[in-house]
Amino acid sequence: MGFKPTVPEGSPFTLQNIPFGVFSTKQDPSPRCATAIGDYALDLRSLSKSGFFEKSSVKDALSQINLNDFAALPAKTRRAVREHLISALKEGTLPEDIAHKLSEVQSHLPVNIPGYTDFFCSLEHCQNCSPMSGGKIPENFFNAPSAYNGRASSVIPSPSLVRRPRGVFWKPGNKEAEYGVSKLVDFELEMGYIVSKSVPYGETIKVDDAPDHIFGFVLLNDWSSRDIQIHEMPPLGPFNSKSFGTTISPWIITLDALDAFRTAPKHKTSPLEHLRFADFDRGTFDVKLAAHLERDGKRHKLCTSNLSYLYWTPFQQLTHHASANCGIRTGDTMGTGTISGAGIDEGGNKYELGCLFEATQHATKPLQLEGGVEVGYLLDGDSVILSAWCEDADGKHVLGFGECRGQLVGPDAPIHNVTEY
Amino acid sequence: MGFKPTVPEGSPFTLQNIPFGVFSTKQDPSPRCATAIGDYALDLRSLSKSGFFEKSSVKDALSQINLNDFAALPAKTRRAVREHLISALKEGTLPEDIAHKLSEVQSHLPVNIPGYTDFFCSLEHCQNCSPMSGGKIPENFFNAPSAYNGRASSVIPSPSLVRRPRGVFWKPGNKEAEYGVSKLVDFELEMGYIVSKSVPYGETIKVDDAPDHIFGFVLLNDWSSRDIQIHEMPPLGPFNSKSFGTTISPWIITLDALDAFRTAPKHKTSPLEHLRFADFDRGTFDVKLAAHLERDGKRHKLCTSNLSYLYWTPFQQLTHHASANCGIRTGDTMGTGTISGAGIDEGGNKYELGCLFEATQHATKPLQLEGGVEVGYLLDGDSVILSAWCEDADGKHVLGFGECRGQLVGPDAPIHNVTEY
Repeated sequence: MGFKPTVPEGSPFTLQNIPFGVFSTKQDPSPRCATAIGDYALDLRSLSKSGFFEKSSVKDALSQINLNDFAALPAKTRRAVREHLISALKEGTLPEDIAHKLSEVQSHLPVNIPGYTDFFCSLEHCQNCSPMSGGKIPENFFNAPSAYNGRASSVIPSPSLVRRPRGVFWKPGNKEAEYGVSKLVDFELEMGYIVSKSVPYGETIKVDDAPDHIFGFVLLNDWSSRDIQIHEMPPLGPFNSKSFGTTISPWIITLDALDAFRTAPKHKTSPLEHLRFADFDRGTFDVKLAAHLERDGKRHKLCTSNLSYLYWTPFQQLTHHASANCGIRTGDTMGTGTISGAGIDEGGNKYELGCLFEATQHATKPLQLEGGVEVGYLLDGDSVILSAWCEDADGKHVLGFGECRGQLVGPDAPIHNVTEY
Repeated sequence: MGFKPTVPEGSPFTLQNIPFGVFSTKQDPSPRCATAIGDYALDLRSLSKSGFFEKSSVKDALSQINLNDFAALPAKTRRAVREHLISALKEGTLPEDIAHKLSEVQSHLPVNIPGYTDFFCSLEHCQNCSPMSGGKIPENFFNAPSAYNGRASSVIPSPSLVRRPRGVFWKPGNKEAEYGVSKLVDFELEMGYIVSKSVPYGETIKVDDAPDHIFGFVLLNDWSSRDIQIHEMPPLGPFNSKSFGTTISPWIITLDALDAFRTAPKHKTSPLEHLRFADFDRGTFDVKLAAHLERDGKRHKLCTSNLSYLYWTPFQQLTHHASANCGIRTGDTMGTGTISGAGIDEGGNKYELGCLFEATQHATKPLQLEGGVEVGYLLDGDSVILSAWCEDADGKHVLGFGECRGQLVGPDAPIHNVTEY
């Protein structure tokens, strides 16, 4: 008898999903490629050994300790793997011993990340931050996607523990700096996307070809220290303020799974030639987003948002990045930047603000949450949980991304993250 | 009979040097670990196989396609390898067949580079650039080393061909942006250093322990597009303007070789606690630097400088970087930032300006070189050659770094760099 999963109502890992990730178990701590369905992770290394995949390139790729080789396979090969898995799951022909309860496996980074870049492409985020940042939208914002190179070594898989960093920041009055424990730690609600087909150093891509270079999406929490950031930003941009931890959800939701949710970007733009794409109605993805805070065991909603709100789409971001001739490698991970929206609730409150810097106006207007909980910046012990999902035209849940969960801990608290192979 | 090298007068690769690199040959295109002496590269993979090294960790490390495993070995193990090589070279006991003429080998990147960071730590550079950058030294400059994460995928070994990039920049008047071929391409005279012992994610280091984490130094040309940079800098810092190519010299000059040239930094500073080091007189290195331009077959000196001029030393840079908890990995490469000085010649001209932005005041005062050659920014076909060397107390050449050579070519010219394994 084969493995025939039941997918619980609301599970992110439906038959329409078939994400890819890497896990290990207590019994076998070696990381291996996997997919997830319902409450189970399926060991694709084992499945490869059983002869399920005919192509030797697929067998080899899924026997590696990360998904880089798989991501580098042609899109149609990856698509065929996904479809083969869906068929076998429907038919119940997969061997039972490849299934491990998700609650019992340890997730790893799905890919080795040769480069991590973070964008700044939400106009609403930019507008909401501007009162605390000199009051102006940067003049270059509308010309091309803004971005900085991030620190790949601090990208860690959910669930992660993130130490409150020490760093250099201004003492009150901005006259003198001190080195100490950051007081103003924030989250940022972002998505990340993982590069499939590489772009050689010295080459560029066309924006309409950008989808060929994306394996899939994850959630991404760009933990940020606002006091360190305010000190270090001018003129070189964020550095230590953004490199004490970047949590990503461990399951990559493929472009194939997301294809049904391609949609028009919220903002109509007239970009420069290298960023003009042909099919506006499929320019981005309708992915619903939420961020929650867990404090003292209670869960509070912080905000919701949507990937399609971005002023510059992921395809434009990647194209602009590659336009420098820098080379883009398989496994490179791009953060979309904080994704905020313009939504206002009945009480007149904005509810699509993707970080506390925006939502609390730099802690000057703390959030008032249920049960009298007041939130300025994050406290040690706070957990931030990002989630994302896609719905069909009737508003019915089709697939989800799973949790991107991270807990802020004290500067010297023990941590035990899975950071590297 | 063994290999007994003669080291030509002025050769960078003396018995006091013993650098480490990676090369391949036409006959055997597989990259292998190597050292260099005089006009020869010595194949350390072959030497390992011959049983020359007793330790299996050394044998294994030097049989890899890059030096990452070797760099990760304890400092005393690496030191013993160097001393063993020096003895055998003196005695002439190395096998002759491991020696390949340097002029006939292809250099590769010496390490796989998991992360590339570039600093901005020369006060003189900062002062000289300030008239073109709003007239001010950034307020944070004196508090801690400034830096941005760079793009590791565009770090390439000398000799390299670098395509003039396309990008987004302001049209005259700064009102409207265009996408086109960059007009203002510059070099930057920097050194780079390569990380040996890693720092785990979540951990920090003490500044006095920083030398334990550095394998050695190279030369580094941080090619820069000034028109793209001016457009994209605010607020996120350099991105595409610095990622179309970063050329490094292929031979890593070890901290052991440089130990005799430890010296006091030029600037006396009173840093914050995490950057205060014990032994001021050994706080940095006396490494002499020069940049030359080759145009139309003629060689022109552009500037000289010295590593010890930096306001923040490499040890302070690395310590500040690690202070974020970001994790530092073996092979990570740090650019020191442009190294300029305050030297003024008899004619009243500054001659220690490490880039054309400074030296020509953003092309408003072109350099007048011998033979009527006028230099604003770089032209297609120009080559920039960086060099570095150390002298003893009597001014006698002791060791050099070899060339860091790159040629700027047109935006669509064929290139054939060694970019990845």
